[in-house]
Amino acid sequence: MLRYNKILGFQKSSSRRPTLHGLLKLSQCGYSKLNSDDVTHFKSILSKPEISVVEDQDDIASYNSDWWNLMRGKSQMVLRPSSTEEVSQVLKYCNSRHLPVVPQGGNTGLVGGSVPLNDEIIISLNRMNQIIGFDSSFSIVKTQAGVVLQRLIDYLQPFGYMPPVDLGARGSCQIGGNLATNAGGIKLLKYNSLHANTIGLKVVLPDGTILDDMRALRKDNTGYHLKHLFIGSEGTLGIITETAILCPKISAASNVALFALNSFDHVQEVLTASKEFLSENLTAIEYFDKECNLIMKDNTKIFNPLGYAHNYYLLIEISNFDDTSDVETNTKAIEQKFFKFFEQVSDYVQDGVIAQDKFQFNSIWELRERIVEGFVSQGLAFTYDFSLPIDKFPAFVERMSDRLGNHARTGGYGHIGDGNIHVQASIKGHDDLELYQKLETKLEPWVFDLVEEFEGSISAEHGIGSFKSPELHRNKSDEMIKTMGQMKQIFDPNRILNPNKLFQ
Amino acid sequence: MLRYNKILGFQKSSSRRPTLHGLLKLSQCGYSKLNSDDVTHFKSILSKPEISVVEDQDDIASYNSDWWNLMRGKSQMVLRPSSTEEVSQVLKYCNSRHLPVVPQGGNTGLVGGSVPLNDEIIISLNRMNQIIGFDSSFSIVKTQAGVVLQRLIDYLQPFGYMPPVDLGARGSCQIGGNLATNAGGIKLLKYNSLHANTIGLKVVLPDGTILDDMRALRKDNTGYHLKHLFIGSEGTLGIITETAILCPKISAASNVALFALNSFDHVQEVLTASKEFLSENLTAIEYFDKECNLIMKDNTKIFNPLGYAHNYYLLIEISNFDDTSDVETNTKAIEQKFFKFFEQVSDYVQDGVIAQDKFQFNSIWELRERIVEGFVSQGLAFTYDFSLPIDKFPAFVERMSDRLGNHARTGGYGHIGDGNIHVQASIKGHDDLELYQKLETKLEPWVFDLVEEFEGSISAEHGIGSFKSPELHRNKSDEMIKTMGQMKQIFDPNRILNPNKLFQ
Repeated sequence: MLRYNKILGFQKSSSRRPTLHGLLKLSQCGYSKLNSDDVTHFKSILSKPEISVVEDQDDIASYNSDWWNLMRGKSQMVLRPSSTEEVSQVLKYCNSRHLPVVPQGGNTGLVGGSVPLNDEIIISLNRMNQIIGFDSSFSIVKTQAGVVLQRLIDYLQPFGYMPPVDLGARGSCQIGGNLATNAGGIKLLKYNSLHANTIGLKVVLPDGTILDDMRALRKDNTGYHLKHLFIGSEGTLGIITETAILCPKISAASNVALFALNSFDHVQEVLTASKEFLSENLTAIEYFDKECNLIMKDNTKIFNPLGYAHNYYLLIEISNFDDTSDVETNTKAIEQKFFKFFEQVSDYVQDGVIAQDKFQFNSIWELRERIVEGFVSQGLAFTYDFSLPIDKFPAFVERMSDRLGNHARTGGYGHIGDGNIHVQASIKGHDDLELYQKLETKLEPWVFDLVEEFEGSISAEHGIGSFKSPELHRNKSDEMIKTMGQMKQIFDPNRILNPNKLFQ
Repeated sequence: MLRYNKILGFQKSSSRRPTLHGLLKLSQCGYSKLNSDDVTHFKSILSKPEISVVEDQDDIASYNSDWWNLMRGKSQMVLRPSSTEEVSQVLKYCNSRHLPVVPQGGNTGLVGGSVPLNDEIIISLNRMNQIIGFDSSFSIVKTQAGVVLQRLIDYLQPFGYMPPVDLGARGSCQIGGNLATNAGGIKLLKYNSLHANTIGLKVVLPDGTILDDMRALRKDNTGYHLKHLFIGSEGTLGIITETAILCPKISAASNVALFALNSFDHVQEVLTASKEFLSENLTAIEYFDKECNLIMKDNTKIFNPLGYAHNYYLLIEISNFDDTSDVETNTKAIEQKFFKFFEQVSDYVQDGVIAQDKFQFNSIWELRERIVEGFVSQGLAFTYDFSLPIDKFPAFVERMSDRLGNHARTGGYGHIGDGNIHVQASIKGHDDLELYQKLETKLEPWVFDLVEEFEGSISAEHGIGSFKSPELHRNKSDEMIKTMGQMKQIFDPNRILNPNKLFQ
């Protein structure tokens, strides 16, 4: 959710069960304050200190703010190491001095995980932007963690491959940050998660230890598979500095269709049919409801070719991988497949379009990918990322809409193929903080109660960060959280890494 | 490797660096001896004690022996709990009494991981054989850990789905054991690993704590992804009692071809071309060399339709997933695809066949899957499972063959698409223990040195177990092994779980 209260210095209201589960409170950690000796030391261990040790407050400002531009950390220093060895030296020193740090990739996280809550030192990975190489025999790319996702996409393209993960923030987010947050995105349905596709990892622990698991063999069953502990740990256990990732082939041809439907039962029928009949060709199924469509109409210039009369919309992308045929044959095969599929689901679908060129392809995708902006450009917005049983999607949005009344507009959209819904609501305008806070009090923790009631997850793909840390217990038992606390204790006994993120 | 020395009571020769990395020696653990009070207690906490508490030595014998029938444990008791709750009570008690245990699934492991080294209590999962259900909306099956893989295959078949893992031992191995060893098998190339496909897990820790991570949502980014710690931990951290697994669709049609080639460069060309041109349709690429083929000729009744004159053989399986067409159309499409592919690689391939019916399909697969038996039926055998850079496959086998001289026949085969080779050697006959031991002394640790030289992995898919525990350092740095030791210390401080497996 977008927590406007952060800029007001308003503290998170108490949660139902703010358990610490073995973790110390921030105030009990005995953190030190950054001093001039520290600065001198950092300048002595980092190459090019003129660009790797950032003290200018103007330069630091963007590192202190999150994507929503609403969280404001008070960090006085950004360190920009250029190698694993430098990260190791920085962490070792910070650990010995009890200086808390926040690891930061592209800073595109949506749950307040990548910015300081206080004056933590920011360790930015943005100078660690070397792509090490691509091994075509196993389709594994090795790269430093600070490489921006779009650069990795561009690098792999001439090889005929692509990263297994893709998301709207591709122009800014870094692959290391994607790993640290276990980013989901639009390709998960087809290519599975980063747990599935991460073959190797290099991680620096708070005490400076380098865990090198980068041999990057396709199969290696020797001991505990530690790398998975760091994938999705949101920078609280170690800093990922290098990775080896399995990459899928770029398809020979692909296309996208948009369907309009009036009943959610029919949405589910089409969903089942698409998995059944398009199966291996299916690369994405995305969903949005009527209110999202209207929000786009009212607040953006993105036009829906199917109009605004229908209740539900499904975007379906399919791809063809037949490299024994030419592009034209593949493109035709894709279209034929869509036509056959239309016949299969004609009882359920009110209307549909297939893109005829790259422009239309992108336009249909924009209808879905830019909904978040539609809500945000209308006014102050709440944004949630949940997993829910698919049949609960409309009921959830309706309950939230009822709760907010006519004070806000509420819609649901997301990666329906994975059961991942984004629920967004925004009030009219950007100034009515009083209304926004009043509504927030109505929404939380009520909305998390509702997720629990529907047996969903309070975070499908965005993570926990600082926004949802009081709510972790909704999805994880005391035993699970206790075990997570033990992991934290092993790797980061001084709690210098990303304090008060993930755990409260 | 097949360690014949086990039956002679011969102890593993000292390894180069038998580090303990924070773990205690067996003798230092202060284990208790099973007594009659313990037996009484187990009978009181397990349902149906007449079948769940096994004390008869004849009944225990098979639990004490491994698949090779060469390891002989001295366990005096097998416990067969029927629920997670019962496993919890058993472990809690054993932990409090310092009674060591060995968790056992189908007991098909090949590295001595599932049988006792001494008189550990065996906890068999074979009564925990309930399949909980299949959720078709996300294609996730929930099951108890003791379900035999073939039963899961049969259960899923009417839904049109299958488990993501398959291996020769499917008739005996259990899904929980597959997870505990991170089994690879013949489908990994297409469907990825068990890390990729395990959505939920229930695990019992040594102190009886139940970690329940079975909500089984397709996406759930809430906290550390602990389940991966247990996948591939070989029963040393906890006992997996339930799981939720993502299942792929059964293909609409599939077929298999066998190719004969004379140069390994050509094998690599065909491999690259198969990934390039068959891509999404490719479900398996398997490999064997001339000596494996001759071993099959001399020791089994399985006939190679391409004869015995060629140096290398590739088995390629492709599948079609077009459910908008009928089986006949799909079958024809598959055949057409193979013919097109033959044209693409005709410069490299000496000869090839495509199966014309189910019988031929199975026969071609038998040529590859039963090589292990070919070697074993010839005589005392060494069997290794490695990952290697693909171009090193023939050189590795040649070096090993040179090392053994004309005392043994040596061949290489395996999942070449994943870089996973099985190297096997057997002497003539089953009685010459002296020669076998002499050769073993020549082979080890030399063979592990060679894997290191070639930058491979000492275990691609079989795990470490007890056979390879002294060699873990070949693939994992001191820092990695130390961290693994810390995990062991957190979960199993009394070292009751599968002692001296994975770690020495």
